[in-house]
Amino acid sequence: MTMSLPADLWPDVQPETARRLMLAGVESFARRGYHATTTRDIATNAGMSPAALYVHFPSKAALLFAISRSGHEQALGLVESAAEENDSPVEAMREIVERFVAWHARRHTVARVVQYELGALPETEYEVVAGLRRRIERIVRDLVVTGVESGDFTVTDPGTAARAILSLGIDVARWYTERARKSPEALGKEYGELALRMLGATSHRR
Amino acid sequence: MTMSLPADLWPDVQPETARRLMLAGVESFARRGYHATTTRDIATNAGMSPAALYVHFPSKAALLFAISRSGHEQALGLVESAAEENDSPVEAMREIVERFVAWHARRHTVARVVQYELGALPETEYEVVAGLRRRIERIVRDLVVTGVESGDFTVTDPGTAARAILSLGIDVARWYTERARKSPEALGKEYGELALRMLGATSHRR
Repeated sequence: MTMSLPADLWPDVQPETARRLMLAGVESFARRGYHATTTRDIATNAGMSPAALYVHFPSKAALLFAISRSGHEQALGLVESAAEENDSPVEAMREIVERFVAWHARRHTVARVVQYELGALPETEYEVVAGLRRRIERIVRDLVVTGVESGDFTVTDPGTAARAILSLGIDVARWYTERARKSPEALGKEYGELALRMLGATSHRR
Repeated sequence: MTMSLPADLWPDVQPETARRLMLAGVESFARRGYHATTTRDIATNAGMSPAALYVHFPSKAALLFAISRSGHEQALGLVESAAEENDSPVEAMREIVERFVAWHARRHTVARVVQYELGALPETEYEVVAGLRRRIERIVRDLVVTGVESGDFTVTDPGTAARAILSLGIDVARWYTERARKSPEALGKEYGELALRMLGATSHRR
């Protein structure tokens, strides 16, 4: 493999062979795109035969779905926990942006596949992933509304503001590389500040 | 073609056949990705023979380069003119964001190819496009610095702020469709306000 992917990706996926195929899938899809990648490419990349791939994933689309669902579940998980752990809308939003941005930077190869190959998912699988996306968007939008009601934020259109905040994080996956001059965490902290400014947060300095 | 592309794209490209091939290339690359598209696909999409394609573009890569360079030149042109037409950093930044966002919304299919298929360009062609990107980034970053010096903006890291502002615009190409509830211009206006807030612009209400 030409790209290095962290060994702690998908620690819950068993057996090891399935995890190796997901890693090879991510690497191949990120490099050449979903449609230009064959199951043979992925199996070769994982050091297996195409037949061995089908033991774990019935199709290339099933492999993309496993990668995409898992990525969206990770992103949803960190957004949910940041929202739950902080009572103040300002601190909750800051944590959401910090974690969401840091995840897209640290996992930029996975995140590229997750964010840019959605259109390649079959309809049923797409609907599952779209449901996860809607939950992420709803948490952020509801938090903007809560903050406006509590007087912490001043925003005319919470939907547009929420989308812009998520865009900041998602686009990090497009440009971030290990050669970037900021660590994922440092970038997350800066973007957390920028997002709070966008929302007109009144007293947001730590 | 399944996607509709505006007829006024690339009015300067001559002859009409070359323009039709660029349109067919954009549509094919956006739908299946560069690597999964053949020159035969593109020629068929344009209602031509593969031989007719080679009269205008020596390779698939040459076609991608023409699309990518033209898209980057358009984006650079609107950023440059917005910067030149406005003396105040606040108004210049507002205009840049409004035009850059509206372009990525109105031209979302072209912009997707332009923004997400950079990695498929051969090295020499990539360098030309990377040069255009650096000019766009420099204009925005220099304007942030100017605004900080004039006291209009308060930003700790102009480079990060400039990148975040461009990210807002670029990511519009990922999600925008004709079914979006806001017009490209309305979205540009809202994002212009959000960007000025990010920069801590002191008196930015029109």
